[in-house]
Amino acid sequence: MTKLTEKIRNGIDSEQMYGTLDAIAADPSLGRFQFRVSNAWIDGAHNRSTIQRFYGAGREDDSREQPFVIDAGEPAVLLGTDTGANPAEALLHALAACLTTTIVYVAAARGVRLTKIESSLEGEMDVQGCLGLDEEIRNGFERVHVHFRLEGDAPEDKLREVVARACDRSAVYDIVSNPVPVTVDVTAG
Amino acid sequence: MTKLTEKIRNGIDSEQMYGTLDAIAADPSLGRFQFRVSNAWIDGAHNRSTIQRFYGAGREDDSREQPFVIDAGEPAVLLGTDTGANPAEALLHALAACLTTTIVYVAAARGVRLTKIESSLEGEMDVQGCLGLDEEIRNGFERVHVHFRLEGDAPEDKLREVVARACDRSAVYDIVSNPVPVTVDVTAG
Repeated sequence: MTKLTEKIRNGIDSEQMYGTLDAIAADPSLGRFQFRVSNAWIDGAHNRSTIQRFYGAGREDDSREQPFVIDAGEPAVLLGTDTGANPAEALLHALAACLTTTIVYVAAARGVRLTKIESSLEGEMDVQGCLGLDEEIRNGFERVHVHFRLEGDAPEDKLREVVARACDRSAVYDIVSNPVPVTVDVTAG
Repeated sequence: MTKLTEKIRNGIDSEQMYGTLDAIAADPSLGRFQFRVSNAWIDGAHNRSTIQRFYGAGREDDSREQPFVIDAGEPAVLLGTDTGANPAEALLHALAACLTTTIVYVAAARGVRLTKIESSLEGEMDVQGCLGLDEEIRNGFERVHVHFRLEGDAPEDKLREVVARACDRSAVYDIVSNPVPVTVDVTAG
């Protein structure tokens, strides 16, 4: 039983984790991933994303039998009918989720057993930017603040180190903090 | 009936839209918004965001009676059990949703009636970065490509203009394309 407990830490199978790392280290082409989303407008501020296939680990993944579906909306004050979290809130979800999962993986790799991770995120925006009312104001968040509350079987300093390392490794933290080139093409008619 | 048809375009009430713009132009402090997400770890790569309250238009909003809930996960190849779209996919959803809603609003303002907006997004990532296997590779997307398919009662050039203007105004397009300062603090114990 002790062995089983050690093998699975924070819900992560450490043998599988090291197996994955070893496989990619041996064949770096396995590290290439392409994630995809399809979205369709429904009405007003209501649109819906469908998420299923991706490419990664050297193959087109077909393991998901059903797509994930996420609806977007806006509250009344932003001209919608609250059909889902708005896009800025969805972005904060992506950031929270990525940092949390990265904390879990880093802790598993470092032998830290976690018992709680909670976070609260706040994104500050002046909508004069995206509404085109003031050219001096950016469209997106001016800043984002994340507060984590962690508990686990490790000293406070060690838990803080895990969060710091997770920030250094999180994909979405990088995407939000640093520029990503986005290209857009249009078929119209 | 003609008046009603003109008042509501693309599901957006144009009188309400111009009323909102006028109100913020008259009192720019109404443009300040703070969006928020709370997230809790469940197990492994499974965590869950809860989204309800925000501050905006000069007040704490309490119009949402129930929170929106979004689960995150990872597929097996990334050590999860597919409990939800992964964080990188959730970020692409946020981008798709924001561009789509911005297209709808821009079109409504310009008198363009849209009948279809569909999009496909692809984000390219080499996970050697976020896995810590290669310091030269970034953690997040190297690039994102968005393909839009639009139909509406306007010439092709006009539809393309609407998309271009939406890219110039989208909050999440700005957040992904440009740096946003992110601060993180931790309560650990």
